[in-house]
Amino acid sequence: MLPDRLNQLIELLARLPGVGEKTAQRFALFLVAEKSGAARELGSALSEISDRVKSCQRCGNIAEVNQTGDAVCRICLDARRDRGLLCIVAKVQDLLAIERSGSMRGLYFVLGRLLSPLDGIGPDQLPLERLLARLAEEGVREVIVATPPSVDGEATALLLARELLARGVLVSRIASGVPHGGDLEFADQITLGRAIEGRRSLDSR
Amino acid sequence: MLPDRLNQLIELLARLPGVGEKTAQRFALFLVAEKSGAARELGSALSEISDRVKSCQRCGNIAEVNQTGDAVCRICLDARRDRGLLCIVAKVQDLLAIERSGSMRGLYFVLGRLLSPLDGIGPDQLPLERLLARLAEEGVREVIVATPPSVDGEATALLLARELLARGVLVSRIASGVPHGGDLEFADQITLGRAIEGRRSLDSR
Repeated sequence: MLPDRLNQLIELLARLPGVGEKTAQRFALFLVAEKSGAARELGSALSEISDRVKSCQRCGNIAEVNQTGDAVCRICLDARRDRGLLCIVAKVQDLLAIERSGSMRGLYFVLGRLLSPLDGIGPDQLPLERLLARLAEEGVREVIVATPPSVDGEATALLLARELLARGVLVSRIASGVPHGGDLEFADQITLGRAIEGRRSLDSR
Repeated sequence: MLPDRLNQLIELLARLPGVGEKTAQRFALFLVAEKSGAARELGSALSEISDRVKSCQRCGNIAEVNQTGDAVCRICLDARRDRGLLCIVAKVQDLLAIERSGSMRGLYFVLGRLLSPLDGIGPDQLPLERLLARLAEEGVREVIVATPPSVDGEATALLLARELLARGVLVSRIASGVPHGGDLEFADQITLGRAIEGRRSLDSR
């Protein structure tokens, strides 16, 4: 019923995360109908970006490719950052969220995936070698493991802690508990259990 | 924090219907991270389509541009269709939905918008002239008004009926009532009211 070319576009759009066929169709019709040339604009932006933006070769964050063909992100290039402090995250979105909080002055390492036996992702599929090489090169003294407080995230944190502690690095885990503004009444049991387990003394002496 | 180029891409993606900044960021990171070259593939598909796919110059459906530069859709080109029967819809998605139902053997006319005084869309903003010209040219004898059963859709249907009836065309409106498989208990008052108002006799004599 639709031109083949449009069906191909719908198929490509349906690969986007969380987008089904109906939504992809809506996107495609919007892009084609737009008189302002949205399809052309988005098309050239995408064609350009695929050569110019890559994963940072040091930390896995998003980086622009420079003249020599290297991709190093703004955070890794920032000389004011504490190079002895490394924060390990699961994905780039998590890195961006931590950056927005403004509470991390060190560098990052993006794992790209978490341990997940059900999906067949074991320790071998994690970039452990690259992480350990980086620790040795840059003289990292402290690592904050900021994988999410989920089953996979906790399993990954345990594995990382074992590997890193064996190499004499300080390792900590982000706190898990009732979120800011959250209501205890509606917090789930695991979150409340963690909030109590991770309680901090108010005695400042 | 992100490369400018990526921020531009996020801005373009956030223009898609129903996509906010967070979702646009997720799309952009997916497209950039993908090793398979999704950004490149989608980019060239979009660049190509903007020249090749346009609105059908007869009905407003999506159509591929042919060698002579004309855009006429598959439905308008289909010689087996009843040219005396015209179905008026608000948007291309509605046309596609009716086509999927397989219950329309005539042609279509896509309005592109509905009367909406609140948004400043009056009768002058509707393509009435184009519609009337088409009726005269093609000798349409019956029109089915398939605008949605919403306030704007009903207002548009009334306007169309007035214009078309004055020109001696048979005009009907799609039925509105409890949907197939729907539960009367959970139907809203307006829908139930319409279902009763639009009741059909079961006496087949």
